[in-house]
Amino acid sequence: MSASVKAAVIGASGYSGIELLRLMLRHPGIDLVAVTSRALAGRVLSGEFPRLRGIPPADDLVFSEPDVELVRQSGAQAAFLALPHGVSAQFAKPLLAAGIKVIDLSADFRLRSPRLYEEFYGHPHPHPELLAEAVYALPEIRAEAIASARLIACPGCYPTSILLPLIPLLRAGLLDLAQPVSVASMSGASGAGRNASVPLLFCEVNGSLRSYSVPRHRHLSEIGQELEVAAGQPVPLVFVPHLVPVHAGICTTIFARPAAGVQPEQIDAALRDAYAAEPFVRLLGRDQSPDTKHVAGTNFIDIGWAHDPRTGQLILLSAEDNIGKGASGQAIQNFNLAFGFPAVTGLLQV
Amino acid sequence: MSASVKAAVIGASGYSGIELLRLMLRHPGIDLVAVTSRALAGRVLSGEFPRLRGIPPADDLVFSEPDVELVRQSGAQAAFLALPHGVSAQFAKPLLAAGIKVIDLSADFRLRSPRLYEEFYGHPHPHPELLAEAVYALPEIRAEAIASARLIACPGCYPTSILLPLIPLLRAGLLDLAQPVSVASMSGASGAGRNASVPLLFCEVNGSLRSYSVPRHRHLSEIGQELEVAAGQPVPLVFVPHLVPVHAGICTTIFARPAAGVQPEQIDAALRDAYAAEPFVRLLGRDQSPDTKHVAGTNFIDIGWAHDPRTGQLILLSAEDNIGKGASGQAIQNFNLAFGFPAVTGLLQV
Amino acid sequence: MSASVKAAVIGASGYSGIELLRLMLRHPGIDLVAVTSRALAGRVLSGEFPRLRGIPPADDLVFSEPDVELVRQSGAQAAFLALPHGVSAQFAKPLLAAGIKVIDLSADFRLRSPRLYEEFYGHPHPHPELLAEAVYALPEIRAEAIASARLIACPGCYPTSILLPLIPLLRAGLLDLAQPVSVASMSGASGAGRNASVPLLFCEVNGSLRSYSVPRHRHLSEIGQELEVAAGQPVPLVFVPHLVPVHAGICTTIFARPAAGVQPEQIDAALRDAYAAEPFVRLLGRDQSPDTKHVAGTNFIDIGWAHDPRTGQLILLSAEDNIGKGASGQAIQNFNLAFGFPAVTGLLQV
Amino acid sequence: MSASVKAAVIGASGYSGIELLRLMLRHPGIDLVAVTSRALAGRVLSGEFPRLRGIPPADDLVFSEPDVELVRQSGAQAAFLALPHGVSAQFAKPLLAAGIKVIDLSADFRLRSPRLYEEFYGHPHPHPELLAEAVYALPEIRAEAIASARLIACPGCYPTSILLPLIPLLRAGLLDLAQPVSVASMSGASGAGRNASVPLLFCEVNGSLRSYSVPRHRHLSEIGQELEVAAGQPVPLVFVPHLVPVHAGICTTIFARPAAGVQPEQIDAALRDAYAAEPFVRLLGRDQSPDTKHVAGTNFIDIGWAHDPRTGQLILLSAEDNIGKGASGQAIQNFNLAFGFPAVTGLLQV
Repeated sequence: MSASVKAAVIGASGYSGIELLRLMLRHPGIDLVAVTSRALAGRVLSGEFPRLRGIPPADDLVFSEPDVELVRQSGAQAAFLALPHGVSAQFAKPLLAAGIKVIDLSADFRLRSPRLYEEFYGHPHPHPELLAEAVYALPEIRAEAIASARLIACPGCYPTSILLPLIPLLRAGLLDLAQPVSVASMSGASGAGRNASVPLLFCEVNGSLRSYSVPRHRHLSEIGQELEVAAGQPVPLVFVPHLVPVHAGICTTIFARPAAGVQPEQIDAALRDAYAAEPFVRLLGRDQSPDTKHVAGTNFIDIGWAHDPRTGQLILLSAEDNIGKGASGQAIQNFNLAFGFPAVTGLLQV
Repeated sequence: MSASVKAAVIGASGYSGIELLRLMLRHPGIDLVAVTSRALAGRVLSGEFPRLRGIPPADDLVFSEPDVELVRQSGAQAAFLALPHGVSAQFAKPLLAAGIKVIDLSADFRLRSPRLYEEFYGHPHPHPELLAEAVYALPEIRAEAIASARLIACPGCYPTSILLPLIPLLRAGLLDLAQPVSVASMSGASGAGRNASVPLLFCEVNGSLRSYSVPRHRHLSEIGQELEVAAGQPVPLVFVPHLVPVHAGICTTIFARPAAGVQPEQIDAALRDAYAAEPFVRLLGRDQSPDTKHVAGTNFIDIGWAHDPRTGQLILLSAEDNIGKGASGQAIQNFNLAFGFPAVTGLLQV
Repeated sequence: MSASVKAAVIGASGYSGIELLRLMLRHPGIDLVAVTSRALAGRVLSGEFPRLRGIPPADDLVFSEPDVELVRQSGAQAAFLALPHGVSAQFAKPLLAAGIKVIDLSADFRLRSPRLYEEFYGHPHPHPELLAEAVYALPEIRAEAIASARLIACPGCYPTSILLPLIPLLRAGLLDLAQPVSVASMSGASGAGRNASVPLLFCEVNGSLRSYSVPRHRHLSEIGQELEVAAGQPVPLVFVPHLVPVHAGICTTIFARPAAGVQPEQIDAALRDAYAAEPFVRLLGRDQSPDTKHVAGTNFIDIGWAHDPRTGQLILLSAEDNIGKGASGQAIQNFNLAFGFPAVTGLLQV
Repeated sequence: MSASVKAAVIGASGYSGIELLRLMLRHPGIDLVAVTSRALAGRVLSGEFPRLRGIPPADDLVFSEPDVELVRQSGAQAAFLALPHGVSAQFAKPLLAAGIKVIDLSADFRLRSPRLYEEFYGHPHPHPELLAEAVYALPEIRAEAIASARLIACPGCYPTSILLPLIPLLRAGLLDLAQPVSVASMSGASGAGRNASVPLLFCEVNGSLRSYSVPRHRHLSEIGQELEVAAGQPVPLVFVPHLVPVHAGICTTIFARPAAGVQPEQIDAALRDAYAAEPFVRLLGRDQSPDTKHVAGTNFIDIGWAHDPRTGQLILLSAEDNIGKGASGQAIQNFNLAFGFPAVTGLLQV
């Protein structure tokens, strides 16, 4: 194991920022040296996040302005960016120039194509020249590239829950891509962010089940990109996200058609081949439904599947914590890969 | 409007039973003359359901044993059955023989085929001879038959949320049935019943999102039957229900492929043709997501839809209260039809 | 019963405003002629509150600017004010001048003393000359005055839950006022309003139990005023409100010392004397705990009590819906009194 | 630090049992060698608790019958008892005889008096001869005794939240005990246990706020005992617990009268004297309200206080996790004391 790595968090005021801090404080190989937030500059970490009171060094660490020079002076070797898209790229550039590895939780470096970025995010990419070296960092899929990357783009929460079940099947050619893959996902409210907003009030979310961003959620862009990489061809995809009254958790249900002649056992085998040795993918097997309550607060993704003999359709089922494996847990997992720690360091706790 | 109709409820100890009582107490044309429950016999109605205290006649009405002769003596002209499947049929037979109209909330009279019933419910149908006259009672689809029926089979909660969006499109031949229709539904916990059970405890359901009964939920049988009636041919269907932490509400998302050449506007037109005059179907229009919180406690079903230009897929979205429009509200709506009341009597309140 | 009364709502964008509209739409004696909201002017009522779609006249009524002249022209005989304190008084003055009865849900006319108002609300009272004629409108306590009032000040949510159990005991001299009355109340999040605010987000309220405004919540002022009226002397009072993760409901627990020689039966008798004939006070009796889920969405308040033989202390327990009996339901109850309707009109539904 | 200690859990099927297992799996000084449960014997630990899948050794450990000889053979040096009262004592006796330290989470060894036990628990104490040596194990109050005890009785959840704020004030003679101490506590549903029961269903607890066990909850017995020890005289106490819809967490509000002449600063000083060096008591200070969401899943108890100048009353406010600091976390903290680990070992994570 490496010695402790000095790390900074840029923009730690949202739910994935808090989760990131929580995980960093218990990671034996991370020395948290700087935390920045424009809104919280000058405040003690545990003053803003009372949950962290009494956990060293949260009572001593003070939020600083998000200034790259300050981060550099802190000696940080790694910087986690928990910033809005568009803003993240502006920090990544000088941090990389200062020799700091960047682990970005925003969408800024997930897409290979600046044109696609502009189409889905509504503004030109601030630093398209960095896209080529950025790694779309699903650790179960791209561990080697992550280990040597300077710029690590952590996948989105929905994409993680959709890509991990599908990629092994696409790589093995088990799906018939003449039929679109249809995905319904449910997410807890932390996925919508920690911003003052009437639709996210307790009284609006509690008792409410609803889809949103239909038919075109931004995450379609990165899901499509990565499915195409796995399949070697474009994969038609329909995606409907839903907001449901839990704090954290994504439950994803995928409908797809197996390729002609594929037997159900091949589905299981492909998943096992891909993930049997992966510590954070828990394969539940056939006709087993994952439950977000078993993964909330963890870095696990649970995957089940079923075959419907009446229609021949395949159903893939996954559950993860949207701010865990879907964001901050995965960021730490990528950190472990990038700095030579065992994959499970700091993450194998429930 | 007819004069008041004397009505009884058989088996009123579950969540749809309570909801039924609530709706009957506020219905201006219903005279609640008998309430039976084996478990609660001898107790005052409002003693078991404290919410009803002070609402006449809930403080005076006493649960009786579920005895058909007692119901007959009460003068009931209509009997609502809120009983488990298998049990319901055993009460329906003598009630019909006593000249009492039966409005059944169980699954016992929903299927035309006793063989299908046995396949999905695991026991032979107790009274297959009654199936021919029973009406699968979606009031928006089959109002005339309901008006003259003796035996009214109220549709299941999931089926209502799936059938109402799909039937007009199937009738109009707008869907390509070579691709299965894929359905993901989320339901509140009241749908699982009011039975002592560890998996339904607050601490097990709260914070939990999960699918269940994959790949073969019992409701597939009645959904399949009714889709076939509408389409004039079998409709391939995949259905994944989910349990989510709300009291009541079903949110349904349907993926389907339009038939060749169908324009998105035709989807909207078919829905409007079918439901523009229906008081309980609220059409939200294109790219609009219904929300269960706007229908909870009501008899409304809200329907939205979207067309995904990237894949050509159609997305249908609906929201209802599983114990309202999905059970007891719809039962009252059927009662109104069967006894000549305006459809909205007692139901147009939120 | 009177003929229909034309009524307006001023400021209907918050949770008690929505509840008020819901109740008015189902009241057989109310003709809703105007709804105003600065923020929503020009929008259709059911466009902003989708729950009301399909309920006449919510699809036709359009929010207007909160202009007194417009309200006058609508022919309104009654105006419900669901406005912030300070603003309400400014509307009340000209509405009264226009001959319109005012039913105010804010705090502006609850206190008799302009000095007390300024102390607790932080600004001078806008129209202290109106305080003398305003009636603190607990209908069970002050029905006659309400019936003849022009200016009806509806009590706050916490005060209603505290005053109704205590007033009969104070009037009967059953409490020892040398010991402070201590009150712990829990309220659902709708009591905190429908304003964009991080502390009221789903993710902040869900899973959270906490007190707030300790030791001096604004409602102390009106509770103290009314307890003093009932007791004929100042009543020492400690009050701790708590925010808990439910949409609606207040659960109040009161600790008090009986006066020397008072027997537990006298507590029960005093409550029954006061409320046996009141349709919205449900007395549960000794050692019985009310539950907010049985009163949510209704105008009922449920009251239980206990005597602790170990310490001689009295425990009073109440439950109400904070936006029902604690706000909008009570406003309608006051409307019924003021316009000669039976007290239960439009309110006896669950 | 000691080397790893072999430990067993007896009766691990409830919510505090699960929490105990979770904490033991991440404790660096605990070697979990046996887990027993009559109901679950033969099942793999992570099969019953899917949340623990993938966390060694949860996939290998199998529940055994609750047999003392098996526990002895496992080499266990410590046994945690998560059993119903009455049952726990029957296991403690032979475990102690086998030389195993017992950390009991039930009520069986909390009371010094077998008569009081029988009065509150309804049956004679199974082993009154053990009561003398049992330690009522509040680690902040009785660390030395715990360090040398064979039989450790972990306090109840409500008592912990009530005793920790009060004991320093009673020891310092700061309260006027002529007035009863009045306590209102709110608890999450996990406190009611993991037993199939209609009143604990999601649909019964969600949206519900209610008191229960008024006026005499069993925990009164141990609270009274310990308050008397601290005060040197009996302390009159009224206690009203409430059930609220959260998974875990207790929020306690205490009303008391300061002794004559006591200044508010003395309250603060007494709390700081007692707890400034305690790692799990977080003192928030004057007029600060603790929030259960900041302590859920942790071993912290947060304490705030207020002085009401209008009445002179003192308000004490605390928040803890009922299955953390209120049960299993505290059990681990006691384990640390008993086996020479630093108090925070395995517990300083959020």
